[in-house]
Amino acid sequence: MFGRTYFCGEVPESAVGEKVILKGWVQKRRDLGGLIFIDLRDRSGIVQVVFNPDVSREALETAEKIRSEYVLDVEGTVIAREPGTVNENLKTGRIEIQAEKVTIINEAKTPPFTISDKTDASEDVRLKYRYLDFRRPVIFETLKMRHQVTKHIRNFLDEEGFLDIETPILTKSTPEGARDYLVPSRVHPGEFYALPQSPQLFKQLLMVGGIERYYQIARCFRDEDLRADRQPEFTQIDIETSFMSQDDIIQLMERMMSKLMKEVKGIDIPTPFPRMSYDEAMSRFGSDKPDTRFGLELVDVSEIVKESGFKVFASAVSNGGQVKAINVKGSAEKYSRKDIDSLTEYVSRYGAKGLAWLKMEAEGLKGPIAKFFSEEEAKAIQETLEAKEGDLLLFVADKKSVVADALGALRLKLGKELNLIDQNLFHFLWITDWPLLEYDEEEGRYYAAHHPFTMPVREDLAYLDTDPSKVRAQAYDLVLNGYELGGGSLRIFERDIQEKMFKVLGFTLEEAHEQFGFLLNAFEYGTPPHGGIALGLDRLVMLLTGSTNLRDTIAFPKTASASDLMIAAPSPVSEAQLQELNLLTNVNK
Amino acid sequence: MFGRTYFCGEVPESAVGEKVILKGWVQKRRDLGGLIFIDLRDRSGIVQVVFNPDVSREALETAEKIRSEYVLDVEGTVIAREPGTVNENLKTGRIEIQAEKVTIINEAKTPPFTISDKTDASEDVRLKYRYLDFRRPVIFETLKMRHQVTKHIRNFLDEEGFLDIETPILTKSTPEGARDYLVPSRVHPGEFYALPQSPQLFKQLLMVGGIERYYQIARCFRDEDLRADRQPEFTQIDIETSFMSQDDIIQLMERMMSKLMKEVKGIDIPTPFPRMSYDEAMSRFGSDKPDTRFGLELVDVSEIVKESGFKVFASAVSNGGQVKAINVKGSAEKYSRKDIDSLTEYVSRYGAKGLAWLKMEAEGLKGPIAKFFSEEEAKAIQETLEAKEGDLLLFVADKKSVVADALGALRLKLGKELNLIDQNLFHFLWITDWPLLEYDEEEGRYYAAHHPFTMPVREDLAYLDTDPSKVRAQAYDLVLNGYELGGGSLRIFERDIQEKMFKVLGFTLEEAHEQFGFLLNAFEYGTPPHGGIALGLDRLVMLLTGSTNLRDTIAFPKTASASDLMIAAPSPVSEAQLQELNLLTNVNK
Repeated sequence: MFGRTYFCGEVPESAVGEKVILKGWVQKRRDLGGLIFIDLRDRSGIVQVVFNPDVSREALETAEKIRSEYVLDVEGTVIAREPGTVNENLKTGRIEIQAEKVTIINEAKTPPFTISDKTDASEDVRLKYRYLDFRRPVIFETLKMRHQVTKHIRNFLDEEGFLDIETPILTKSTPEGARDYLVPSRVHPGEFYALPQSPQLFKQLLMVGGIERYYQIARCFRDEDLRADRQPEFTQIDIETSFMSQDDIIQLMERMMSKLMKEVKGIDIPTPFPRMSYDEAMSRFGSDKPDTRFGLELVDVSEIVKESGFKVFASAVSNGGQVKAINVKGSAEKYSRKDIDSLTEYVSRYGAKGLAWLKMEAEGLKGPIAKFFSEEEAKAIQETLEAKEGDLLLFVADKKSVVADALGALRLKLGKELNLIDQNLFHFLWITDWPLLEYDEEEGRYYAAHHPFTMPVREDLAYLDTDPSKVRAQAYDLVLNGYELGGGSLRIFERDIQEKMFKVLGFTLEEAHEQFGFLLNAFEYGTPPHGGIALGLDRLVMLLTGSTNLRDTIAFPKTASASDLMIAAPSPVSEAQLQELNLLTNVNK
Repeated sequence: MFGRTYFCGEVPESAVGEKVILKGWVQKRRDLGGLIFIDLRDRSGIVQVVFNPDVSREALETAEKIRSEYVLDVEGTVIAREPGTVNENLKTGRIEIQAEKVTIINEAKTPPFTISDKTDASEDVRLKYRYLDFRRPVIFETLKMRHQVTKHIRNFLDEEGFLDIETPILTKSTPEGARDYLVPSRVHPGEFYALPQSPQLFKQLLMVGGIERYYQIARCFRDEDLRADRQPEFTQIDIETSFMSQDDIIQLMERMMSKLMKEVKGIDIPTPFPRMSYDEAMSRFGSDKPDTRFGLELVDVSEIVKESGFKVFASAVSNGGQVKAINVKGSAEKYSRKDIDSLTEYVSRYGAKGLAWLKMEAEGLKGPIAKFFSEEEAKAIQETLEAKEGDLLLFVADKKSVVADALGALRLKLGKELNLIDQNLFHFLWITDWPLLEYDEEEGRYYAAHHPFTMPVREDLAYLDTDPSKVRAQAYDLVLNGYELGGGSLRIFERDIQEKMFKVLGFTLEEAHEQFGFLLNAFEYGTPPHGGIALGLDRLVMLLTGSTNLRDTIAFPKTASASDLMIAAPSPVSEAQLQELNLLTNVNK
């Protein structure tokens, strides 16, 4: 125990009568009837210390100087509390420490906020004084959860024969994907390292090298503007395997996650996890990462309304679009016209030009658009949406992607508003059968939906030449409670397929070789079939702690505003440093 | 086992008769009497596969196309080898696989070097084809050792209540120490992140925050030129604790290292490890990281020779210097005049102006300088150096630091040359009682011997104002077999002492606050006493694997020459990228 007898929060009742030494911080001091009571806190919790002039006048006199957050060394005897003063809410509430000696190790100014789970301090203040924020049990427990999550994952993967291998942080810049952070090289003027967006290429080279099972808790970087749900540096659980099928990898991850859930949350998650194709997820939930903890699914009514008198619906369908609806069960009364107007404003952010609605009353469907539908159409809508009296039906008619985005977002909003989500549930879900490529209409070219190294479904390979949008990927995303935990795929391991993929993405053969020649060459020396996955650690910890703030899961997060915590922020450097890096002049010339 | 029945090197003798599926690479193919034999390799080892036309003509025909490093899927039956063909050197040498079906998963060009532990390939070629290098068992075992070392250390620290906490890679530049890698910020033009040289300040803030026990396997960066024993990015086992004494930390580390040695090497290392003061180490070994696996200690003969007729010795002493010697036992015959000339050249690299020598013969000390010593002086030299017939005595006379450097280096050279070092020994050693500061005569200022956050010995505090060179540090280095594994210290945790330290280092109060204000402020909010250590993981793995090449311990090391492995090297970037980073013009203006 290194100089202390117990951690404060762990002094057991059985220690009554024992002489102890404790170290910690002053949570609170109360003076009462000539005695001084101090709640002494360390990371394990709190214990009460009593200063009694009959025991030690000197200790009492020192205690008089003590303020909140002072650091103390306390020597004393564990005594049982008087029956009336027992605190059943405190783990150590049946005992207290009768102080015989106290040393003030360090003093403290009054902290800018109280050290307790509940705080009214703004996040900026909390982050400026992050070292005080750490003392709040809720933040300590979050960091501890992060430690435990990585520990259990490491142990699981170690048992499965995975090797933890560090890949470089100073790497070569590759043009695909988000912006790279660049690091000027002093030794090679005019050249730059890039910080990795993921260890993708390194782990593939490890597979070429016969490592077979690799993992890393890997730091990754994206030079993007700060957003609430993103950090420019983030951590992923990065895994790659050889000779495994998609099912093998999915099953391995299911065992890993269900074991983790049992170990850190005590929750049994049955395996296999449900699987859903990308198309089904988009169709039923308007999202490629659906939160399946509640209903409010999207229902296609295009066929029913395509010839209706409501022109908005009919023309949406005839223009190749869709009409879909959500049945908000039993909510007809809850949503006034004004409420629905605000929902309409909400879906407009996702490109929807309107939000049509109907309410199911005893006599049937009512609402401004009801008159446009024939009796048959109204009946079909009712049946398809399983509408019962009191239900509210919300419709969006637009092109497919807008319908999905708008109703997908509306569904989540309603789920929260109506308290339909059981926060104790953990719904894991695989999304499979992804498209390999996405067509960017503005740029008139294809982009890789996952990344350029994803293996196409073998039987779709021929479409790469004729209709690339038809090619499916051997890719799988793991979704938890509506968040994308991460994604993986089998990788291309044959040079000719990889070259064809680069060609579809608009590379000339020369460009492909200039940038990825080392990989294409490596593929010629006996590359095994391989695949893997990467899971976001920050987000996983956030979901496991029930937090909604990604920054709480990171010890020293970046923020746009709390720049006083200077150590995690950029700063000016000296002209001499810039000169040495050749950054004061055009380095390219 | 995911699609295979066994790993190749682990097919047990008990599997005879079993149908198996194996995957792996072709190590070797031999055609013999109508049969084809293939050594199939994966990371676990090798198994022999036999293709027999009587079993499957189709498999044999496929086998005829097989070359080294092809990737195969083999189905067959495990059979016992004929008694005469058993290979006792191979774990699977009593069995072989009778192939019924074989699939060539991928082909391979002829590799530029053979996949075996012994290789005549240059390191440049090995690194250019690092993915083939990984297939050599010796490299795989090194990466596996690295995995095991971190695993055992993590488990040990977890059991001791340490939390694994990630600190940022994108941090603020601090001016002390080696050169920082700088990362231009796109969001804050003209400002830069720095990559951390160590998580020092972060871990101290974690201690201010009451985390009490922190560790991290932390990536660190120094923008230094490439050297054989250094990498610009390296990994340290980074540890920080609160409320622990120097002895507590040392004992914790001793338990960690001896447990590790037992687990990964099966060697019992007794604790406590020996401790030696910095002064003693410099005096006896001429080094602050002595290799104590052999003798050849430095012996001071200044007192004996200070009035001798040998002016070189006498004047060295009268000028405040020293005369020290090494007794190279029984080596008088081994070293000719020419050999000693080459040793003289060697010590001159360390600033020594000469290397005097004497040989102990039956009649006494002989050699060109023997005549300068009186009989008494000669006798005293003999006795002090415990010289016996056949010994060679080597002397350096110079100022103290040159004597230490020159004889310290000479001692190591002789130890290797004379094979005095038992490579099976692991000598751990603590070096303690370091000076806090080093005076740089050229710059006329003090530098921190460890870093500016090291706690002075309390009773020496007063010297900070009067004679800073006298102040000792509460610091400790861990040495293994002559390598510095790492160093640690107790840290300053009081604002006034830290401010005084910055002042001694030449900071104005304003400069100190501009750069380290967040730390000085943090110290005012109840900072506990704290201290820690950082150990070099790359070097530890190097020593545990018996390698002398640091790069072999790193999956993707940086090299000056093997730039074909482009993914770990800097490269030019586009003008557009530079423009966006404001690097094409003077960013400071």
